[in-house]
Amino acid sequence: MTLLSALDYLSVFIFALTGALAASRAQLDLVGFFFISCLTAVGGGTIRDVLLNRDLVFWVTDPWYIAAACVAAVLVFFLAHKLENRRRALDWLDAGALAVAVSAGVGVAWSLGHGPAIVLIMGMITGTMGGMMRDVVCNEVPLVLRKGELYLSAAFFGALVAQIIHLFTDYDLLAFAACAVVTFLLRAGSLAFGWKLPIYKARPKRH
Amino acid sequence: MTLLSALDYLSVFIFALTGALAASRAQLDLVGFFFISCLTAVGGGTIRDVLLNRDLVFWVTDPWYIAAACVAAVLVFFLAHKLENRRRALDWLDAGALAVAVSAGVGVAWSLGHGPAIVLIMGMITGTMGGMMRDVVCNEVPLVLRKGELYLSAAFFGALVAQIIHLFTDYDLLAFAACAVVTFLLRAGSLAFGWKLPIYKARPKRH
Amino acid sequence: MTLLSALDYLSVFIFALTGALAASRAQLDLVGFFFISCLTAVGGGTIRDVLLNRDLVFWVTDPWYIAAACVAAVLVFFLAHKLENRRRALDWLDAGALAVAVSAGVGVAWSLGHGPAIVLIMGMITGTMGGMMRDVVCNEVPLVLRKGELYLSAAFFGALVAQIIHLFTDYDLLAFAACAVVTFLLRAGSLAFGWKLPIYKARPKRH
Repeated sequence: MTLLSALDYLSVFIFALTGALAASRAQLDLVGFFFISCLTAVGGGTIRDVLLNRDLVFWVTDPWYIAAACVAAVLVFFLAHKLENRRRALDWLDAGALAVAVSAGVGVAWSLGHGPAIVLIMGMITGTMGGMMRDVVCNEVPLVLRKGELYLSAAFFGALVAQIIHLFTDYDLLAFAACAVVTFLLRAGSLAFGWKLPIYKARPKRH
Repeated sequence: MTLLSALDYLSVFIFALTGALAASRAQLDLVGFFFISCLTAVGGGTIRDVLLNRDLVFWVTDPWYIAAACVAAVLVFFLAHKLENRRRALDWLDAGALAVAVSAGVGVAWSLGHGPAIVLIMGMITGTMGGMMRDVVCNEVPLVLRKGELYLSAAFFGALVAQIIHLFTDYDLLAFAACAVVTFLLRAGSLAFGWKLPIYKARPKRH
Repeated sequence: MTLLSALDYLSVFIFALTGALAASRAQLDLVGFFFISCLTAVGGGTIRDVLLNRDLVFWVTDPWYIAAACVAAVLVFFLAHKLENRRRALDWLDAGALAVAVSAGVGVAWSLGHGPAIVLIMGMITGTMGGMMRDVVCNEVPLVLRKGELYLSAAFFGALVAQIIHLFTDYDLLAFAACAVVTFLLRAGSLAFGWKLPIYKARPKRH
């Protein structure tokens, strides 16, 4: 297994856990758990692969990704009631999956020889799109749009750090690690301490 | 016309009827009817074709699919007021389209040489994604998420039956027919008698 | 720069302005502005390119499109408060972007040798899908669905005029211009004077 597919597996599994938690909040049956888990787990990477026109989407080449997502769904289906606060668990797991998935997206874009702009975008897409589909389908407010939180921005700065390291060294493992750490710390700081970027200021009258 | 394209035509036409019914509930004009009908009719198969990286999406190769969907839209635009209960008509037509489309998705995945996991997924995607897009765009509650109904699960078991038959015989016509019958019966049983799978049990406190 | 890529650049920039206006209404931070601007700006063309299976999506080949969208986002982030009515500005800018993008979609479909049905559909998809994604992600009512307005229909008739001119002459510049003018005038007439097509009439009892 290459480093890249290990990153993909890890992000698939963690995202699948968050998808199953969302399915538990929507009170679906087990097939519904499978569906939301798989959608969340492979959604971002699928959009990345379609946009980059890879020969085959990663999970069509290797359906074990789907199996990993289904294992996560079954685990949550039978164990989620032990969690005290499923929304909070979902947020923190999502932060971990985001961090790993941004690295995976950046790595795939590099492996196909793309330049910095496309690398940053593919990192952000791989990291955030799966969670966004989960939230749209389950009628939760998309994390992407929650005001005064770092989410897209965490992914953006993580991918940026990876790209900068990549310009100066060949140690991609270092770049992936730095990307995941920066993304996770920014997102965690936002969840725990309310870190945020300045938002657009609304005027008194809103039209 | 091959068996596969006959299945595609049939599911396109029935899904287009459901799309037009949803457009009538949203009170759109005739161009809006065309749009929702086409989106519903070819949505699932389009996602299937993009994910499997077929050379061209099926309706780009053969635009008569679009013509079939537009005929369905015109029919509903002028005749829907004769229906006593459009929501109920939509549910039952959708059940029929689902049954045929799952078969069509399974067949395309086989024709490209994919294994069981991808076959099941493509059956479910082809069957359910068009209706899901219809519901999201028209602001209806997606059928996929209606609690205590078999929908995804009906598609799943239909595709599973087809795959099992395929392992033992070469009569794909039999596999398609069994797939459509099983899917339709499960969905119909759910609509008529409330059949369902056990859902995730909510705890008293929901976070 | 070819005529086609000039059309793409122009529609990308204007759509990006509308995306940033929507981001300002949702009170996002600057990274959120970038995201919604890029999504709106390249969304329609991306779906077109994926459906037509072009080798690479247009902005992956040429990331300057992304840069143009980000410039638009920064402009709106710092200047939007000078607008008296952001919703109205958004509607009119969207009408301009729609007009240009329909031409761009039609042109790409011609350049790949597709027939009339696919040309009309690609014109409508390129023109309307970016705005639809913007509205879905930002929780606005999709323009596509606003009752009693010409939107999809404006795109349809614009593309139709282009296709008719294309059948009789080789002056694609003329066809593009006529397409953009017809689309814009129909949309503008709908915004300013309430032009519309007859909609489906609801019955007293709605089921």
